[in-house]
Amino acid sequence: MQPARRPGGRTARVRAQVHAAVLELLKEETWDDLSIPLVAERSGVHQATIYRRWGSLSALVDDMVTDWLTTDSPIPDTGTLRGDLRGYAAKIAEDLASPMGVLYVRAAMVGSKGPEGETYLMERAVHLNAMFERAAARGERPPSLLELLEVVIAPLYYHLIFFNRPVGVEHAHMLVDRLLSLPGET
Amino acid sequence: MQPARRPGGRTARVRAQVHAAVLELLKEETWDDLSIPLVAERSGVHQATIYRRWGSLSALVDDMVTDWLTTDSPIPDTGTLRGDLRGYAAKIAEDLASPMGVLYVRAAMVGSKGPEGETYLMERAVHLNAMFERAAARGERPPSLLELLEVVIAPLYYHLIFFNRPVGVEHAHMLVDRLLSLPGET
Repeated sequence: MQPARRPGGRTARVRAQVHAAVLELLKEETWDDLSIPLVAERSGVHQATIYRRWGSLSALVDDMVTDWLTTDSPIPDTGTLRGDLRGYAAKIAEDLASPMGVLYVRAAMVGSKGPEGETYLMERAVHLNAMFERAAARGERPPSLLELLEVVIAPLYYHLIFFNRPVGVEHAHMLVDRLLSLPGET
Repeated sequence: MQPARRPGGRTARVRAQVHAAVLELLKEETWDDLSIPLVAERSGVHQATIYRRWGSLSALVDDMVTDWLTTDSPIPDTGTLRGDLRGYAAKIAEDLASPMGVLYVRAAMVGSKGPEGETYLMERAVHLNAMFERAAARGERPPSLLELLEVVIAPLYYHLIFFNRPVGVEHAHMLVDRLLSLPGET
């Protein structure tokens, strides 16, 4: 027995090395320049190993996004609707400012939405609805999920995608204030 | 002289065939499945010709987006701010519902923004500002360009990217109504 070569440990280490190499490369290269040979060179993991394990660059990206989604942090519970929404929006702005945010948007974009992605979105919707129910129970008037997505979340993604410039926390807070200033439904 | 083989005519015809093939394939395939061999097969144009002319799939996509951007339609002048904005938003919703819309978003996403793309965005900004100035001259209170992008345009793209489902004209009109209902700046 050689503990240093346990298959589980080696597998996990290779995965971490490859994930880290992709994130590093994303800071330097555009998407079009990213390739498995480049990831192999940066990570020190053989191309053949990467191909055998993931099969393609998009499958590798999906694996990273899944990993990221399943370790996501909880939705805040601050005692006010504005506080909860500001915390949530600021967290998304922060995530989008990281290389993983870019990966996530690209994974959504190329249409490679695995079952994990859909499960994640449904879980998020359940948690956001719980946030809205807490607000309603306190006598606050929560927005709809669609209003939240359109008024707060969509602009956060738009800035990243079209201006290649994620927004800061102050801007995320302003978007929440805009959402809460919308006239109520009739 | 053989008129049927004039280089200009043939070049234009090859370009049109290849562009049409990409748009057709996009209705059937995901981005990850798209490739130059597939485009060659569908268009009936030799792979070598495609590689010689465009060099890569992303350069081909850029060429198509540039072609599309430079034939874009004018911004409406209906006599009211709401009418102009509704016409503009409905046009974008319609464009995004076409395969070219998907191409455009992807081109923006992968960071291959050529000088044509930037020129286009600047021209758009000039035209939108002219729309706002017409409104102000009539005594209406126009939004800022950033408010327009965040409240109307960003959700249109978001629906396409994350739900893979472009919105209809009614929804685009509702987004304009939301924009015009925002409380004025202080």
